[in-house]
Amino acid sequence: MKLEHIGIAVKSLENSNQLFKDLFNREHYKIERVESEHVNTSFFQVGESKIELLEATDPQSPIAKFIEKNGEGIHHLAFEVKDIDAELKRLSDLGYRLIHEQPKDGADNKRIAFLHPKSTNGVLVELCQEKA
Amino acid sequence: MKLEHIGIAVKSLENSNQLFKDLFNREHYKIERVESEHVNTSFFQVGESKIELLEATDPQSPIAKFIEKNGEGIHHLAFEVKDIDAELKRLSDLGYRLIHEQPKDGADNKRIAFLHPKSTNGVLVELCQEKA
Repeated sequence: MKLEHIGIAVKSLENSNQLFKDLFNREHYKIERVESEHVNTSFFQVGESKIELLEATDPQSPIAKFIEKNGEGIHHLAFEVKDIDAELKRLSDLGYRLIHEQPKDGADNKRIAFLHPKSTNGVLVELCQEKA
Repeated sequence: MKLEHIGIAVKSLENSNQLFKDLFNREHYKIERVESEHVNTSFFQVGESKIELLEATDPQSPIAKFIEKNGEGIHHLAFEVKDIDAELKRLSDLGYRLIHEQPKDGADNKRIAFLHPKSTNGVLVELCQEKA
């Protein structure tokens, strides 16, 4: 298992791309729009992990709702696993609450599923697996 | 630069050690008390990064205040740099607000300094460098 990415909710991808460019001293390497999640994303590589900036594309976006409630900040942690179906079953059997019982398509060519933050000290955790 | 660790504020290290043991399917590898920060910490290794659980040891702890305001959750991201003094100067020159102008001693044999979250979309960012 490794930390695949950290998702950060931002109001303006343009402004935040500049902030994180300054912080990491490098440019983002990709912009991707994910229609199903109503977000524009940009990615920075930091070691083996990525920082994924998330900007809402409309008020119905989960990111718009998150920012309205919490302000800008860290939205979720995503851990890459080798077999997401087996991991979801393992965690469910251990009593973890799952937001998605079955993986769905996510950004960056991945199958993803979220665990419920009540199971993980308020941290929204995504599991992901690269599509074959 | 790499993501050295993610700090997560928890109410009970004992309870959360079990939760994250289940999530990562491995035990924490270290417990460390940091008197200066009024915290007990435990560490899990996930790929090249660590998850650092932070439990307040008294009500004056920054972690106690964080939980009172925000509930449990992600407290900070720590990025390892090769020359923390040079990085602080570089970021300060770029207009970043710093919480610590000079590095101080932190957990895990490191020199650390925090950037102000106003400069980084609400994300509390720590820079750290392994002590020689």
